[in-house]
Amino acid sequence: MARINENFLKLPGSYLFSTVGKKVAAYQEANPDRRVIRLGIGDVTLPLPKAVIDALHRAADEMAVQETFRGYAPDLGYEFLRSAIARHDYKTRGVDIAVDEIFISDGAKSDSANIQEIFSGDSKIAVCDPVYPVYVDSNVMAGRTGDYDEKTGRWSRVIYMPCTAGNGFSPEFPQETPDIIYLCFPNNPTGAALPKGELQKWVDYANEKKAVIVFDAAYEAYISEPEIPHSIYECDGAKTCAVELRSFSKNAGFTGTRLAYTVVPKQLMLDGVMLNALWARRHGTKFNGAPYMIQRAGEAVYSEDGQKQIREMIGYYMNNAQVIYGGLKAAGYTVSGGINSPYIWLKTPRGMTSWEFFDYLLAQAGVVGTPGSGFGPSGEGYFRLTAFGSSESTAEAVERIKKLS
Amino acid sequence: MARINENFLKLPGSYLFSTVGKKVAAYQEANPDRRVIRLGIGDVTLPLPKAVIDALHRAADEMAVQETFRGYAPDLGYEFLRSAIARHDYKTRGVDIAVDEIFISDGAKSDSANIQEIFSGDSKIAVCDPVYPVYVDSNVMAGRTGDYDEKTGRWSRVIYMPCTAGNGFSPEFPQETPDIIYLCFPNNPTGAALPKGELQKWVDYANEKKAVIVFDAAYEAYISEPEIPHSIYECDGAKTCAVELRSFSKNAGFTGTRLAYTVVPKQLMLDGVMLNALWARRHGTKFNGAPYMIQRAGEAVYSEDGQKQIREMIGYYMNNAQVIYGGLKAAGYTVSGGINSPYIWLKTPRGMTSWEFFDYLLAQAGVVGTPGSGFGPSGEGYFRLTAFGSSESTAEAVERIKKLS
Repeated sequence: MARINENFLKLPGSYLFSTVGKKVAAYQEANPDRRVIRLGIGDVTLPLPKAVIDALHRAADEMAVQETFRGYAPDLGYEFLRSAIARHDYKTRGVDIAVDEIFISDGAKSDSANIQEIFSGDSKIAVCDPVYPVYVDSNVMAGRTGDYDEKTGRWSRVIYMPCTAGNGFSPEFPQETPDIIYLCFPNNPTGAALPKGELQKWVDYANEKKAVIVFDAAYEAYISEPEIPHSIYECDGAKTCAVELRSFSKNAGFTGTRLAYTVVPKQLMLDGVMLNALWARRHGTKFNGAPYMIQRAGEAVYSEDGQKQIREMIGYYMNNAQVIYGGLKAAGYTVSGGINSPYIWLKTPRGMTSWEFFDYLLAQAGVVGTPGSGFGPSGEGYFRLTAFGSSESTAEAVERIKKLS
Repeated sequence: MARINENFLKLPGSYLFSTVGKKVAAYQEANPDRRVIRLGIGDVTLPLPKAVIDALHRAADEMAVQETFRGYAPDLGYEFLRSAIARHDYKTRGVDIAVDEIFISDGAKSDSANIQEIFSGDSKIAVCDPVYPVYVDSNVMAGRTGDYDEKTGRWSRVIYMPCTAGNGFSPEFPQETPDIIYLCFPNNPTGAALPKGELQKWVDYANEKKAVIVFDAAYEAYISEPEIPHSIYECDGAKTCAVELRSFSKNAGFTGTRLAYTVVPKQLMLDGVMLNALWARRHGTKFNGAPYMIQRAGEAVYSEDGQKQIREMIGYYMNNAQVIYGGLKAAGYTVSGGINSPYIWLKTPRGMTSWEFFDYLLAQAGVVGTPGSGFGPSGEGYFRLTAFGSSESTAEAVERIKKLS
């Protein structure tokens, strides 16, 4: 008799964005003439760069002709893309990553959810709080997280590292030693970044404890300050303790085009086994490569035109971030993020809960953001705005919020 | 201290295609003037149909303009593709499948490897032998399969259902009752298909035993005989016991373009829980949708032009299958498959092992196929040829083999 994986039932419903959607719909129905401005979801809005579009057309034409048609891609990714990554994302920052340490995939969400598979079933994970929910949820499904406590919003076998104003949104070493440490910097949702010295401490800690860091660098392209490392491998010793996740979603507008990669250095060994070989085996057995055309599109991101075009795009979004950050600060809000990331994280005023502020902002300003409590218990009392809107509506949203004060 | 998932270490090396590659390279070096004909791997060679190429260009153009740009896709797939599937792949065969029972993915390899996640960790699986290796390997990684016996090539906790000439390559009900039953028909590698009456028996068996059938119908488009069902849902009661996997790889040439789908009927319940909801949760947590452009390409497969073009393509490959089947039969070989599938399965002559025949065929005819033993212990003494080559080289390969006799 077949039975289900009961760990799936432990997952509490994911109501965050559906509740947001319902509240917005109800407001819009009651206020049909009011233009609602959505700065809630972390999805890009600018079209794909021209260099990428051109590459997509070229690749489609190749697929139309027998001589240049491509069947199954190499499971781990095409050499042309892996070598472009090694050169542009690592060599330029003084980091030596070999082509066979780079694994192309269909997205950082998939990679960050799948990476746990190569670790022992009883591994204890540590996560920042608040955090991108996929790290915890994928471990819930794999049965590692113990029981959920509705009151605290915490799992009994997960180590939480609160990131609040009190510690500058930078996690402290936990009391209990974790096996796997998920770090996402620049952070979603707080927008905080870790200076190299701080990240080096985590690398040293992981090497000392023989823990593995899963470093999610999906927002690396938004870093503007020179002291912030773009890769964890800029820290000494990271190759023996860290896996790094990267994405084309936020730097090149690929959220609907799907491309990402994970770096697993060959020096990273556990129990005498190279994690690189395990991840390769996982890819080879359970994945069949990203589409040829999309890999060509990714390659184009690294061309001279592509680099210029994505810098313009990122500049556009970062200008929005500055408008939000500066405007809210001027209006008296306590604001962080927005300097090395497309996310602005603000303290809700007058002791409102995250959801109270959501309702207030929607009702009074017609502006939609995301309640911080949706990202974890320590997000309560905070609120996330994103820089991915148009510059016009971003400016208008800020003006509306200013008028509230 | 982090530790690895030790189940990964249990997987024996996957040497089949790398051994094939090495032997071919050595032969080619020793015989530089001989043109080797490769009928080994199951990868398509014809370019994408024009309707698909046109859709790819149109979608790329949409991504170039802000007004039509698409960010994150719905995790479960775009409505336009899901409804085209429901209409063309099911309604036309008298099967009623709802749009929210269809889950779009990046490939049937991913789906067939991931589907085990929604089942209990101690589920006992049954597989045909020989079989596509992903079903077993993904369960090995999840720790369900017990220990591997190098002598027999079998796992202690897997139920094997031999498919040999003795039973017409049609599996018999196993002695021990399985929880999950993987069935792939038309079959890779044997090319055998199951008539509706036979498949109905499996559906009745699964419903009686409360087992779940994972029905891999990736080769459905190659079915030519009217008594062969294209979907397991053509059988009565299949919606309460079966999940169905489909792919765009072999019917529309998408092996390097990546698109597939899985059907999980809402009537399929285990432990009072809808598997449909579990699979939706898995998609939503660990996957971020297939690329917009590729989903538009998939939609174009169902257009009038697309249907005409893929029928031509399948006809081309099936003509190759007939050439191989007829030619080998005329040369005195015992041959099966090739009628409802692009695979021809032959008994090795004169008691040769699968690898002995591989070496013989390469040395004497310069033709590459796949040793049947690579697909499981009951594949020993068999050999697979595929219909995916060009018609010219397929015809020449057959002529060369005929001359050996």
